[in-house]
Amino acid sequence: MKKYVEKNDVVVLIDSNFRKYIVDTNSKTDKIKGVGVLDPSSLIGKEYGKQLEIGNKQFWILLPSVQDKLQSVHRRAQIILPRDAAHILINCSIESGQHVLEGGIGSGSLTIALASAVAPNGKIISYDVREDFIEHALKNIRKTGLEQYVSTKLKDITKEIEEKELDAIILDIPNPWEAIENVWNALKVGGYFCSYSPLISQVEKTVKELRKHSFIEIKTFENIQREMVVSIHGTRPSFDMLGHTGYLTFARKILQS
Amino acid sequence: MKKYVEKNDVVVLIDSNFRKYIVDTNSKTDKIKGVGVLDPSSLIGKEYGKQLEIGNKQFWILLPSVQDKLQSVHRRAQIILPRDAAHILINCSIESGQHVLEGGIGSGSLTIALASAVAPNGKIISYDVREDFIEHALKNIRKTGLEQYVSTKLKDITKEIEEKELDAIILDIPNPWEAIENVWNALKVGGYFCSYSPLISQVEKTVKELRKHSFIEIKTFENIQREMVVSIHGTRPSFDMLGHTGYLTFARKILQS
Amino acid sequence: MKKYVEKNDVVVLIDSNFRKYIVDTNSKTDKIKGVGVLDPSSLIGKEYGKQLEIGNKQFWILLPSVQDKLQSVHRRAQIILPRDAAHILINCSIESGQHVLEGGIGSGSLTIALASAVAPNGKIISYDVREDFIEHALKNIRKTGLEQYVSTKLKDITKEIEEKELDAIILDIPNPWEAIENVWNALKVGGYFCSYSPLISQVEKTVKELRKHSFIEIKTFENIQREMVVSIHGTRPSFDMLGHTGYLTFARKILQS
Amino acid sequence: MKKYVEKNDVVVLIDSNFRKYIVDTNSKTDKIKGVGVLDPSSLIGKEYGKQLEIGNKQFWILLPSVQDKLQSVHRRAQIILPRDAAHILINCSIESGQHVLEGGIGSGSLTIALASAVAPNGKIISYDVREDFIEHALKNIRKTGLEQYVSTKLKDITKEIEEKELDAIILDIPNPWEAIENVWNALKVGGYFCSYSPLISQVEKTVKELRKHSFIEIKTFENIQREMVVSIHGTRPSFDMLGHTGYLTFARKILQS
Repeated sequence: MKKYVEKNDVVVLIDSNFRKYIVDTNSKTDKIKGVGVLDPSSLIGKEYGKQLEIGNKQFWILLPSVQDKLQSVHRRAQIILPRDAAHILINCSIESGQHVLEGGIGSGSLTIALASAVAPNGKIISYDVREDFIEHALKNIRKTGLEQYVSTKLKDITKEIEEKELDAIILDIPNPWEAIENVWNALKVGGYFCSYSPLISQVEKTVKELRKHSFIEIKTFENIQREMVVSIHGTRPSFDMLGHTGYLTFARKILQS
Repeated sequence: MKKYVEKNDVVVLIDSNFRKYIVDTNSKTDKIKGVGVLDPSSLIGKEYGKQLEIGNKQFWILLPSVQDKLQSVHRRAQIILPRDAAHILINCSIESGQHVLEGGIGSGSLTIALASAVAPNGKIISYDVREDFIEHALKNIRKTGLEQYVSTKLKDITKEIEEKELDAIILDIPNPWEAIENVWNALKVGGYFCSYSPLISQVEKTVKELRKHSFIEIKTFENIQREMVVSIHGTRPSFDMLGHTGYLTFARKILQS
Repeated sequence: MKKYVEKNDVVVLIDSNFRKYIVDTNSKTDKIKGVGVLDPSSLIGKEYGKQLEIGNKQFWILLPSVQDKLQSVHRRAQIILPRDAAHILINCSIESGQHVLEGGIGSGSLTIALASAVAPNGKIISYDVREDFIEHALKNIRKTGLEQYVSTKLKDITKEIEEKELDAIILDIPNPWEAIENVWNALKVGGYFCSYSPLISQVEKTVKELRKHSFIEIKTFENIQREMVVSIHGTRPSFDMLGHTGYLTFARKILQS
Repeated sequence: MKKYVEKNDVVVLIDSNFRKYIVDTNSKTDKIKGVGVLDPSSLIGKEYGKQLEIGNKQFWILLPSVQDKLQSVHRRAQIILPRDAAHILINCSIESGQHVLEGGIGSGSLTIALASAVAPNGKIISYDVREDFIEHALKNIRKTGLEQYVSTKLKDITKEIEEKELDAIILDIPNPWEAIENVWNALKVGGYFCSYSPLISQVEKTVKELRKHSFIEIKTFENIQREMVVSIHGTRPSFDMLGHTGYLTFARKILQS
């Protein structure tokens, strides 16, 4: 492993509040909130893992992990949080080498998690109806160096899916139930479907539509995360808590008997 | 993709309650609970995705996914559930190609999830102090075809870690705090630590020990999963719910300033 | 306070698993599950708070609290649990002296909690469309000695409410939205409404109907209770947990401006 | 019931965000946040339930309920929320006529809930070690008109409890375990104990101390409340959520066998 930052390295700077900034040492300049303009080339030669001072602030410098990449995504719309992405990856059995279709690219956050999971031999295809969303997401994805695993298409997934024999299809769109017919056709036998929806009515319509087609293991759940605070006074759950993210509905394609 | 079961295929049989049985068509005989002895070679030629009758029961036949493999693990001790494995994978940024150390192999459930994530170029090393646990876990791992990515060692991780520059170390042992010194030495800079513990006191001791060493992003949380039941009567959370699995404590190695 | 059981006392017997049996020392005979027939008069003279042996089992003997009464209700339908009753009592500001209407008597469990709260000067009126439910509930209520605070009516609350100027109206019926017009007319100004419903669709219809009338402070929530297990090994949340009881929707009557 | 505000009435003003202000029409002047000085006597003659304009803001005017009183408590320290008070009331079987001791008066919020439950024939005795806390709490209690049911004592409950044969004792102090000996002596046989603590270590010490004395039904739980948002778009849990309030530990006095 590299001990010092070298030319062309992409690094992450982490401040004392664990806010993260991905920096390409190759780029001309970069801005860091609350610090100002940074000359990325000045980072070359620094020791990985050590704290360094930029402006008046202290930063740890590290090679970026997937988490760092996910946490430095610039959000435009509400994103699928890493905690929900984790459940999508495991419940849809996403693995290296797979071909996975995403409907609704959002800010590219889930795209990054998926791309990292199918690398180095797989591919993520991402449909969105809005060109500006695709552009914004691609900017985020390029920062992570995972763009080679991602293709985007300006298409409405409820209208058509061009791909066949997909390992999994993940939807983050307002009307997932309208895509179910296309989803079934585009999935391989045994392939997984997941839909992320904040509202109960979206879940109901999607589950009802799934039941009309040949899917098994249809289930919906939500994940609630509670942080524990350990201090010298004692331990307790954190007072701060996100009450809801979204419901995850899963299903798996079979053939009609 | 294969349309029909071929010689040497490993398949999964899924009953109407979504219980799963991994079957190697190459093996002599196999037993299925409630059905009896099955001749695995009789499955050759069946169409993937279709339902077939064995004994008096209906089964779907599919190529097994990681989920199928995880769900058919034969449990001896309490296992780390896929839902918690999901958070470990994403929070420790486990990726294809990494070298990850596991302390406490349990029934091999987490090992399978980790092996699937680092394949095809990575490696899981798993320490356990009990040979019978290792044997039992390996039996489960072999059923999944992931054994090539797993090395086991009959060793106490709190005494010594032989590896260096590891991408991540995951502990599921009763006394994780006693391994922290070794963990720090064996991790690469920026590498991730995770400990899974059911008890608050384990969390407290582990967090206190982590704080004595050069780790950042130390945080503990638990995940609560609620299933939603969608029926013709309406939608509600499931009455059945697992109240607790374990607390997950994460940290990341840096160098002393 | 009484030190010893006297003639005419109603007592509670509590076994080592904290199962409870309300016994009227005045009654001829009583049956206790797993013990058999008991002569209630044999309890007279026993010291309150001490353990005594009946059959081969140990029981503590105490004067029954409201909790004891609630916990010994014989359930026929699913009951509103004390934990939800607690929220109804406080959010509807139930107090001694009030007149409260209940729609749907169930097994009389909520009726007992309400009666205990409005005693000694208030009154609970309970409507139900099924005479057998009323009979069964009254049997439970009589065991608690609170029957003087309860009137029952064999009536459909969605058809008519005879009372006026009620302090609160609590519904546990399948179609609460159909009673909202009647509820508004029967409540005093500033009076409280609560509906207990397991399903989201019931909540939605009820909230929509409430919004068509002059109500303020319309809100819906659910309560999740987690038990903590403290043992010599350490502390953790209980694995056993009830995933859902019901949603509570509250509102308060005002006048149109 | 009164239709119009009369001389000497205490009323509640509720703004469009459901913030509440208790006003004594008898008082000289009162200040309302964001409105300014109000002449309370100007409210006499207004119709209860109607909206009226004060300054530039709209307020509903009602006779105050216990909820209104609880929600208008001026907080100095962190208070026991009504949702937790609800569980204390039902699990400790608090009823009209009882004598209940409170250790740690806080801002008087729980005191108000307890006083309202034991009225009109019971009594709350509240110990606190800080005179300024007692003064502040009494100011809040007096606003609710429940002061006749409350006695305060400037005493340390871990040092001594003067009362005997109490129906229940509720503690909200940092060191509840140090009061357990006194609590047992002061409770009636069958009387209830509750301790409210934010930290796990407090729960552990308290439960261990309870087990050394003659208590049964020792149990600890926490309550998590989730609000549901019903809108024209659909229904979902609220994103805003309080992650933790405190753990409630309950127990009940028996005699040594």
